[in-house]
Amino acid sequence: MKPKFSHLDERGQARMVDVSGKPVQYRRALATGALRCAPATLRLLKKNALPKGDVLAVARVAGIQAAKRTAELIPLCHPLPLQQVSVDFVVKADRVLIEATALTVGQTGVEMEALTAVSVAALTLYDMMKAVDKGMVIDGVTLKLKEKR
Amino acid sequence: MKPKFSHLDERGQARMVDVSGKPVQYRRALATGALRCAPATLRLLKKNALPKGDVLAVARVAGIQAAKRTAELIPLCHPLPLQQVSVDFVVKADRVLIEATALTVGQTGVEMEALTAVSVAALTLYDMMKAVDKGMVIDGVTLKLKEKR
Amino acid sequence: MKPKFSHLDERGQARMVDVSGKPVQYRRALATGALRCAPATLRLLKKNALPKGDVLAVARVAGIQAAKRTAELIPLCHPLPLQQVSVDFVVKADRVLIEATALTVGQTGVEMEALTAVSVAALTLYDMMKAVDKGMVIDGVTLKLKEKR
Amino acid sequence: MKPKFSHLDERGQARMVDVSGKPVQYRRALATGALRCAPATLRLLKKNALPKGDVLAVARVAGIQAAKRTAELIPLCHPLPLQQVSVDFVVKADRVLIEATALTVGQTGVEMEALTAVSVAALTLYDMMKAVDKGMVIDGVTLKLKEKR
Amino acid sequence: MKPKFSHLDERGQARMVDVSGKPVQYRRALATGALRCAPATLRLLKKNALPKGDVLAVARVAGIQAAKRTAELIPLCHPLPLQQVSVDFVVKADRVLIEATALTVGQTGVEMEALTAVSVAALTLYDMMKAVDKGMVIDGVTLKLKEKR
Amino acid sequence: MKPKFSHLDERGQARMVDVSGKPVQYRRALATGALRCAPATLRLLKKNALPKGDVLAVARVAGIQAAKRTAELIPLCHPLPLQQVSVDFVVKADRVLIEATALTVGQTGVEMEALTAVSVAALTLYDMMKAVDKGMVIDGVTLKLKEKR
Repeated sequence: MKPKFSHLDERGQARMVDVSGKPVQYRRALATGALRCAPATLRLLKKNALPKGDVLAVARVAGIQAAKRTAELIPLCHPLPLQQVSVDFVVKADRVLIEATALTVGQTGVEMEALTAVSVAALTLYDMMKAVDKGMVIDGVTLKLKEKR
Repeated sequence: MKPKFSHLDERGQARMVDVSGKPVQYRRALATGALRCAPATLRLLKKNALPKGDVLAVARVAGIQAAKRTAELIPLCHPLPLQQVSVDFVVKADRVLIEATALTVGQTGVEMEALTAVSVAALTLYDMMKAVDKGMVIDGVTLKLKEKR
Repeated sequence: MKPKFSHLDERGQARMVDVSGKPVQYRRALATGALRCAPATLRLLKKNALPKGDVLAVARVAGIQAAKRTAELIPLCHPLPLQQVSVDFVVKADRVLIEATALTVGQTGVEMEALTAVSVAALTLYDMMKAVDKGMVIDGVTLKLKEKR
Repeated sequence: MKPKFSHLDERGQARMVDVSGKPVQYRRALATGALRCAPATLRLLKKNALPKGDVLAVARVAGIQAAKRTAELIPLCHPLPLQQVSVDFVVKADRVLIEATALTVGQTGVEMEALTAVSVAALTLYDMMKAVDKGMVIDGVTLKLKEKR
Repeated sequence: MKPKFSHLDERGQARMVDVSGKPVQYRRALATGALRCAPATLRLLKKNALPKGDVLAVARVAGIQAAKRTAELIPLCHPLPLQQVSVDFVVKADRVLIEATALTVGQTGVEMEALTAVSVAALTLYDMMKAVDKGMVIDGVTLKLKEKR
Repeated sequence: MKPKFSHLDERGQARMVDVSGKPVQYRRALATGALRCAPATLRLLKKNALPKGDVLAVARVAGIQAAKRTAELIPLCHPLPLQQVSVDFVVKADRVLIEATALTVGQTGVEMEALTAVSVAALTLYDMMKAVDKGMVIDGVTLKLKEKR
């Protein structure tokens, strides 16, 4: 059997895959990514973030809300119930590491929800810090873990 | 004057910046990024993409639509008219390069719109190709150009 | 000059057309359509609609709200301010006529907004009446007038 | 028993019907419609569509995405999981035929999802071809099949 | 055990609570609230509302639609199927009483859906009556009943 | 001239008012409201809020984002550019006071945007504190100031 793109039918046309025959299972995904910044930006973030938390809290909320809208953003994604979403940050010397988990009890995996949460959290950090840093880069957005049981 | 995050007020609280005093100007932004994939995935993409175009067309539409929803996704972004958005792809041996431009005649820049278009186009490609490639990474999402006149 | 689709670039790829060079003008569009129904359905609608108006009011609200979301629904439409939207109905013997107007002071026309309002108002009527009529058809959705000045 | 509109309560007021007592079943709907165009427009569509597919691919994506947002557009529709959505086109001499299917395993049917997909796909085609054809009409949007098991 | 906010993790960070271990149950909530107005406004509302019903019908639709979007508006709410939503009004001498019920068969309660329906119905009434009454106040928005079985 | 509801036409039907003839002006609105809670809840909020700020930051973001979606939530509101939105909290002994400002340079006022921000911020606080306090009430949501120049 040849490898093929599941979202294309036999004529090469886009479609939402039929998942009605798949079992309802506990499915969890963990995605990560990073926003690379100048060290001075991150020192400023740490100074602002520790007393009040607003910068990271805003980015966390944005990531969680984006996960819930994944099926609106990614055209061929299925709308899914989400039993849990979380977004975490680690501020390193030259980057903010971002980690998101999503969890469903459903018929398809939630890797796109976790990846979307990471991407939108990174974009939100970028937006809030762009006045002081013109050279930021979002890097390494990828899936770390996908499990079902 | 000390550098500061424009989206935090003097108490460190998040806010939408007041842009009512800024001039209405032609503003354009260009962002880029890449989805790194296995070469076999990209050979498959090229084979599927060339006759029908659905894979790249779906990702292009997703990026354009996401640009229009930037203010919903990024909490402190201003809602903006958008006079033009475009998303382009170049399929290389080991990655798909993604480039997006956004254009407004308004009071704030559109870098977040261009970056959001790149990110969501990348996520959409990831979604359509994930059945054949488990190791893809979104990399190098950054602003290349921002102009106003 | 050959006729061409404005939403395709020279490579045949979809794009949002650049309207930044177009003048800001008063632009209005009027679209119409009809939901064809069994006469018994329309007698029931008239009986229900006259005292309370909820059926037509719900469809009117749905059409107005859809007009405001046209740029989210139609991928290559520009987001626009809308200065006015209205949706009207005439209940005939075998159909409900639907008429919608949209008005902007902007750089592109609002025919898609008016057509979207008609279509979603028709779908909403269909939804509310489908329990009693299995053979309804949405017909004749078209633009009647487009003006700018 | 007299026929009545299920979305009106005994006082004639709109409501979302209570479906909590209905069985979770496999439910599928198929809707069709057409965009009537000038023959010259369709010759242009075929010429553009065959090499790149962007016009039809954009309309297909728009229809699929609209199906997922049916409960936002149609006020009294229930939010539903959707296990599959597809949109297909046949380009005839004087019209584009549009066919959409929607599938859920849930407590209510998906005819509105299929009809919404057809309508928004038709509107999207209209938008992309309106620069070359001022007389297009959306016609015959109706339900062809509804099944549950 | 000390009382704690369920939406904060052990580090005080916001999260969507994991509800995957909770049973799927029939859950219903009833919320109420009021829009306090000048008596003259309410006499005008009654005069307008009784023949046509549009004012209350528009507010009812707005409340029902908002209930369906609760998870988009309230960042840490779970997306939920909703089997039923209703919004009712009683026009008193100095206020409009608003009552909303929401019903799910799911893993979390629907009190936020009912409260959101009341709040948005009140805001919609406010919007439609603000031209004649500058002193309206939304008051007493609270949960009256929450049940599961 | 008799007072009348501006959102009803001469037949009592809902409509979006035509604002195309109104001048583009600087318009600002300030709305307030309160979430009444048990004193123990507020002591817990203060303890949690001060070190990390996540509870209030989440509610602030939710209010700002809701202001941007006012025209989607309130059916007859006009979509508007928003040049600034802010949401503030004061934690009192028995309530959280909420204050929101919205600002546009446009053709209609932004009181609904400010009131929507207050309401959704209050609902978000309610959601996060409902596990420890079953008797909270949203009260006194009203417009404090509306100016144009």
